[in-house]
Amino acid sequence: MEIEITAVGGYEEVGKQMTAVRLGEDVIIFDMGIDLSKILLHENVETESMHSLDLIEMGGIPDDRIMSDIEGDVKAIIPTHGHLDHIGAIPKLAHRYDAPIVATPFTAELVKKQVQGEKKFGFDNPIRKMEAGEVIQINSKVTVEFVNVQHSIPGAIAPVVHTPEGAVVYGLDMKIDHTPVIGDPIDVDRLKEIGREDEGVLALIPEALNAGEDGRTPSEKVAKEMLRDLLHSFEDYDGGIVATTFASHIARIKSLLQFAQEIDRRPILLGRSMEKYSGIAERMDLVEFPDVGMYGHRRSIERAMKRVMDEGKEKYLPIVTGHQGEPRAMLTRMARDDTPYEIEQGDKIVYSARIIPSPINEGQRHQAEKLLRMQGARVYPDIHVSGHMGGDEHYDLLDWLQPEQVVPAHQTASVRSEYIDMAEELDYKMGRDAHLLRNGDSVTLTE
Amino acid sequence: MEIEITAVGGYEEVGKQMTAVRLGEDVIIFDMGIDLSKILLHENVETESMHSLDLIEMGGIPDDRIMSDIEGDVKAIIPTHGHLDHIGAIPKLAHRYDAPIVATPFTAELVKKQVQGEKKFGFDNPIRKMEAGEVIQINSKVTVEFVNVQHSIPGAIAPVVHTPEGAVVYGLDMKIDHTPVIGDPIDVDRLKEIGREDEGVLALIPEALNAGEDGRTPSEKVAKEMLRDLLHSFEDYDGGIVATTFASHIARIKSLLQFAQEIDRRPILLGRSMEKYSGIAERMDLVEFPDVGMYGHRRSIERAMKRVMDEGKEKYLPIVTGHQGEPRAMLTRMARDDTPYEIEQGDKIVYSARIIPSPINEGQRHQAEKLLRMQGARVYPDIHVSGHMGGDEHYDLLDWLQPEQVVPAHQTASVRSEYIDMAEELDYKMGRDAHLLRNGDSVTLTE
Amino acid sequence: MEIEITAVGGYEEVGKQMTAVRLGEDVIIFDMGIDLSKILLHENVETESMHSLDLIEMGGIPDDRIMSDIEGDVKAIIPTHGHLDHIGAIPKLAHRYDAPIVATPFTAELVKKQVQGEKKFGFDNPIRKMEAGEVIQINSKVTVEFVNVQHSIPGAIAPVVHTPEGAVVYGLDMKIDHTPVIGDPIDVDRLKEIGREDEGVLALIPEALNAGEDGRTPSEKVAKEMLRDLLHSFEDYDGGIVATTFASHIARIKSLLQFAQEIDRRPILLGRSMEKYSGIAERMDLVEFPDVGMYGHRRSIERAMKRVMDEGKEKYLPIVTGHQGEPRAMLTRMARDDTPYEIEQGDKIVYSARIIPSPINEGQRHQAEKLLRMQGARVYPDIHVSGHMGGDEHYDLLDWLQPEQVVPAHQTASVRSEYIDMAEELDYKMGRDAHLLRNGDSVTLTE
Amino acid sequence: MEIEITAVGGYEEVGKQMTAVRLGEDVIIFDMGIDLSKILLHENVETESMHSLDLIEMGGIPDDRIMSDIEGDVKAIIPTHGHLDHIGAIPKLAHRYDAPIVATPFTAELVKKQVQGEKKFGFDNPIRKMEAGEVIQINSKVTVEFVNVQHSIPGAIAPVVHTPEGAVVYGLDMKIDHTPVIGDPIDVDRLKEIGREDEGVLALIPEALNAGEDGRTPSEKVAKEMLRDLLHSFEDYDGGIVATTFASHIARIKSLLQFAQEIDRRPILLGRSMEKYSGIAERMDLVEFPDVGMYGHRRSIERAMKRVMDEGKEKYLPIVTGHQGEPRAMLTRMARDDTPYEIEQGDKIVYSARIIPSPINEGQRHQAEKLLRMQGARVYPDIHVSGHMGGDEHYDLLDWLQPEQVVPAHQTASVRSEYIDMAEELDYKMGRDAHLLRNGDSVTLTE
Repeated sequence: MEIEITAVGGYEEVGKQMTAVRLGEDVIIFDMGIDLSKILLHENVETESMHSLDLIEMGGIPDDRIMSDIEGDVKAIIPTHGHLDHIGAIPKLAHRYDAPIVATPFTAELVKKQVQGEKKFGFDNPIRKMEAGEVIQINSKVTVEFVNVQHSIPGAIAPVVHTPEGAVVYGLDMKIDHTPVIGDPIDVDRLKEIGREDEGVLALIPEALNAGEDGRTPSEKVAKEMLRDLLHSFEDYDGGIVATTFASHIARIKSLLQFAQEIDRRPILLGRSMEKYSGIAERMDLVEFPDVGMYGHRRSIERAMKRVMDEGKEKYLPIVTGHQGEPRAMLTRMARDDTPYEIEQGDKIVYSARIIPSPINEGQRHQAEKLLRMQGARVYPDIHVSGHMGGDEHYDLLDWLQPEQVVPAHQTASVRSEYIDMAEELDYKMGRDAHLLRNGDSVTLTE
Repeated sequence: MEIEITAVGGYEEVGKQMTAVRLGEDVIIFDMGIDLSKILLHENVETESMHSLDLIEMGGIPDDRIMSDIEGDVKAIIPTHGHLDHIGAIPKLAHRYDAPIVATPFTAELVKKQVQGEKKFGFDNPIRKMEAGEVIQINSKVTVEFVNVQHSIPGAIAPVVHTPEGAVVYGLDMKIDHTPVIGDPIDVDRLKEIGREDEGVLALIPEALNAGEDGRTPSEKVAKEMLRDLLHSFEDYDGGIVATTFASHIARIKSLLQFAQEIDRRPILLGRSMEKYSGIAERMDLVEFPDVGMYGHRRSIERAMKRVMDEGKEKYLPIVTGHQGEPRAMLTRMARDDTPYEIEQGDKIVYSARIIPSPINEGQRHQAEKLLRMQGARVYPDIHVSGHMGGDEHYDLLDWLQPEQVVPAHQTASVRSEYIDMAEELDYKMGRDAHLLRNGDSVTLTE
Repeated sequence: MEIEITAVGGYEEVGKQMTAVRLGEDVIIFDMGIDLSKILLHENVETESMHSLDLIEMGGIPDDRIMSDIEGDVKAIIPTHGHLDHIGAIPKLAHRYDAPIVATPFTAELVKKQVQGEKKFGFDNPIRKMEAGEVIQINSKVTVEFVNVQHSIPGAIAPVVHTPEGAVVYGLDMKIDHTPVIGDPIDVDRLKEIGREDEGVLALIPEALNAGEDGRTPSEKVAKEMLRDLLHSFEDYDGGIVATTFASHIARIKSLLQFAQEIDRRPILLGRSMEKYSGIAERMDLVEFPDVGMYGHRRSIERAMKRVMDEGKEKYLPIVTGHQGEPRAMLTRMARDDTPYEIEQGDKIVYSARIIPSPINEGQRHQAEKLLRMQGARVYPDIHVSGHMGGDEHYDLLDWLQPEQVVPAHQTASVRSEYIDMAEELDYKMGRDAHLLRNGDSVTLTE
Repeated sequence: MEIEITAVGGYEEVGKQMTAVRLGEDVIIFDMGIDLSKILLHENVETESMHSLDLIEMGGIPDDRIMSDIEGDVKAIIPTHGHLDHIGAIPKLAHRYDAPIVATPFTAELVKKQVQGEKKFGFDNPIRKMEAGEVIQINSKVTVEFVNVQHSIPGAIAPVVHTPEGAVVYGLDMKIDHTPVIGDPIDVDRLKEIGREDEGVLALIPEALNAGEDGRTPSEKVAKEMLRDLLHSFEDYDGGIVATTFASHIARIKSLLQFAQEIDRRPILLGRSMEKYSGIAERMDLVEFPDVGMYGHRRSIERAMKRVMDEGKEKYLPIVTGHQGEPRAMLTRMARDDTPYEIEQGDKIVYSARIIPSPINEGQRHQAEKLLRMQGARVYPDIHVSGHMGGDEHYDLLDWLQPEQVVPAHQTASVRSEYIDMAEELDYKMGRDAHLLRNGDSVTLTE
């Protein structure tokens, strides 16, 4: 069986991830993401009504026109988790393939939300839910197994394609977290087992995000301890405390809910994406949200804020959108004094997030912080740990799986070549069994 | 005669500079600037129609209400040069004082332009023009002399107040440039002479901008050589070349005009402030602008650009606004493909400016550059030298003048204390004869 | 009673801390530190045999000759904790004062060790041990109380001088840690109580180390979680693991001992200062060291290492000196392959410390890391939290104590003026009640 | 004719450059450099007496054992210029090849000096001098032409191999300088001509040093203007002025000599490499050194310094080694007060060099500067422009030559992949015609 990997998107950037793996005559697509950073460069772009070709032109979604060069039929589209750089292009591209979306339940719900907003294209691919640990049959010889991993969103998995030639492991957006706050620890035993199986691992497609950095990413438990330490230090404060984090980071929100209650404040979620992600998490029983208000629409948010102001800011802990200083997010609007919630001298703003590195984010975040400080707010940045592997975790993963070939993804060539530097310590060699693809490139793994 | 210095603005920031010097019963105000960085944090602010108190509240202009505590009459308002952080608050504040504006001709023209736009307050202070080297009598015992200096705008001077107690030298925004491109070199002989005079120098009020940095700022001649070297390297290029610089930096524009002609391109100035500053410079015969188009209004700019596109981009060198990535400036609009001028693969964008340090500027500039690059443009940043003294020039100035006291201005306390660290090498001492004032503070120099 | 504060050392640098507080005719000295960074600039300096005047000349110890200008008798020398920048000059300077050293037991032991090495001067000041919470009478009207704080070494206290005019709080080198690993949490209740007492707080002398930084320093418990997370991730590794940290950071060493045991490795302490500090901690029962070898002398270290190599590196966790890449420390010698312990491919080096910021440290640490990596080691940097307050803790401390005056110490003027920026948010004012002293300056607090 | 390029050294680092080009059965070696940064990590290494295998093991010189896999005879060893990372391994490796060294006269002299110091290996390769513009016949079908380029040392060339299959251009360590201070401008006309020839360019092997950076490197003339501006600003200073720069940077030294004379100071060259490089330049009449002392040995240096001290520092401008803070260089010894030349308050130290980026250099330079400042010196850093192409020059070179294939050298894979990003703008493609080799890799250019 000829096995070929095609880099469709995400091999020149962090964003718009999409990889096709051909197994003889069948093809599996992993991820179909959007690169919002490319789109937000332009003004007044409304992606929902745009044609895919215009978005491709902008560099905003993968250029999947090369899929027509691949001789095979797409049998499944498998997003590894629900972040937009992995599912955001599904509304624009999935309809071209006669194949189901196969995803964990949380990811599947997010895909559904995503396609609801689409105004240009229809979408009727079936969505099939599958839990970590389960397996789907692609054809008589090929199955895909979902191995549980941990990332900064629930429901992340590493899909493993089992073939007669060995396994192909697609390992993006994950960390080796043994003590997560939601869900099971990453399934290291299964990964090691796959590495030891007879047919072995034919290829690993890892993310390369932090491949050049030393050390390991701390467990989400460490972020939880940081938050506990900080929020408990505010125990006696009788003014406003506001927290912001990634809306999709349900584990972080869970910790915030817990510590809000421990310091006698009622948590309240404000902002459209807060409502979206936490609403799904609540319906799926991922977290208990007893008596936690969630408000996504402008009017209901304002009503909730008025109630907070009436009853006393010291009784509440609003958890809001806006950690990157996004111009229209809640915290930015609060900074502009454009909401009923009033920031006063000494109020505390907890950023349980880091700035996603880009001068644009840094400028916007700086502006929001500055406006908050001018109102007297005190700012607590970086109460956060990453959801991505550190360099050392990459080393371990490679060591466990012992793949014959490795195809790093999800970064520029420059950073991916740092991944390969690391792999060369484990006797891989660039060009021989460590491949530095560009968007549009393919590599055949079998002779 | 009691002499007192009051820090009105610019002693906690770079921006909104204003200092009052009381000489017995008479007062001289130096500079009346605006801090646009504070104002631009807010959206949709139109300063022209705003009340001064609102701008004071925002931190945008000096809080001159403390002037009422000073027992004396304002006899003159002296801006040292025409940058907005030195003249921008004149429309809002000058009308409260029954005193003329005294300025060099170029600065005076800019003050006139500035007050023309004002919609809230009237302005009828007389404007008196005075050249570098000339002297104005304030009262029977006090005169003010304008000493020629060099800065990144024509017409910059250091005003020196001669009193029976010694001189007070107000030395902001200057560099020790012996080989400038426009105007005479800084008048070092006169400064040294003032330092040696019998009554000596009672006080120096220096800028502290780069006081903590090593070395000296290169002459504007070095920037000219850098530009010459770069533009001549484009001699054979037959596509578009666009340059951007500070519109008020007439010396830099003069160099750009020269090299444009040397490589057989017709320079053309585009953007509202380009027209404003260069128009004044032309009327005052500071530079020859033979056959150089200047266009400030949207429609005339677009017409000019269409002509450029018709005749061939290779025949022109547009010099445009937008070096900081300002959202509405010309270069940003060109980056957004929002003008008739088309950027093509290989076109050259020369930034004869540096990013004024702030995450907001960095974000905006990054965004503009990114959009330019996406169209194929090649970017040449930092073809620039500063208009401010380096740390070593501060050392020399202090050494020449030997003031009894020194009152650094134009920076945060933290950077101004680095000025004082430097002054302590020359045997000054913080709190004794080196004063770290805050906005609103005064220091009496005589017993 | 006239109360005067004299800045003897540490008001132009981080290092060689020394402050004198005169209470009428009696004087208390707080800290007597050394600035090793100044001394290590020179080659082959052996401080033990040097005269104090030569060290003063070098900038290595406080210039206490100004003590002769203070009209009063020194009644006590009080080091707040045992770091060298607080006790390192005692062997050189204490003999000039007829006064006891008053310190917590751990600090007192370190002072004893320090004076043992001295070769130039005699030392016969009595050493008086006093626990946190206890009080010493200075004269009929003045007492000093030790308030328990947390820092990166055991036995840290904030001494509070109680006078009829109010309290003087000397608050250097501490953090607001509610969940420390050794000792009691910082005594916030007592600090708040002192702030509320009738006579109030006359003055606070805080460190200014991180005054300009946002946020709070995480608890030592967070560092413990980071270490737990990392070391447990090595559970299955069967090669060498080496950890390095500050030898005086007994809490960190305690965590390392615990996790070593949890992953079935025997901890072993190697290096002269490891033996010194941990030896004292063991004798004082601060930590249990069951079956932990401690070796300080070259020969015994090498014997221990040979045993480790014989029995198997996978059975041990050496905790060694050298986290800054110091040329003669253990880890650097291991990097140079100059010890019996062999580093092999995949071995893990845990830096439970950060680089103390200085280009010299960065160069040395880089060199050591590079040599380790060339042998195949994997490096885990920054498994650490600081022992100093973040900016927000400074804000809280000021808010609790409400001192009439504040005199920041332990930094350059530039950073201390950032402390004052922060204090001005709480209505202090530079020059009025917030004092920016230089080494050698005094300020009288009472009229 | 089969043409193959083998990356021997410098394809994973900046340093130890060595590339072999096989043309049918003949081989040409370009460069044979040393990587001192690897060697200086170790203590007390004396390279002169070391065996090549030990140096290879350390990573200090190219691992040329792979040369035995190349089926062909080495016909020439061609160093492009005389820097150690291009000629430093000749004493260790050249004797293995029965081939002449072919180099420009200046480079040839430096090779001779280099092999003189060798203590381990013999050296009897003939050295053949060839000027830029000349051609050498390799075999009946192959010639090598030296094209004149500019770099930070005299005598730099780009060797071009003319073959029936097209040209192979080896373009390392150069800049597109049209207005150099010594020698002819880079021969752009010839490069363009080669690009236009019928057989075209088969391959370009460029350096990738700054390929990811924007813009162009300014001409050496700009550095000259910076120096002129600075040194003339010292015209009235009557104390010591000391300059330091790269000893091999004869153009820079020429400028220093000129400005020294213009400000009435006698230049004097101090330090072993100053004497070595300038001595050769003088003998070759590259620069006039009228009445300039050059001293390389400790005793003669000290005598010269005593004379300077006796006659008056204000009469001299010592140009010394030590711009990187190297522990044994002259300026470092002056900083340690270990020479007869006394640094006094106000003396000026001109660094006409930048720090070569590495934490070790930064630490050493910081230490030297600190010691100089403690003696009162004022420091002027970065009076310098680079000798390497900026990103835009790479773009132009590629555009002129239009090579069929491009093989970037002289950097890590990560930076070289940035070169390829740039090349992809000109329609190259990684893996197809843009090759990212590692030390030891080969690529065959012809079918």
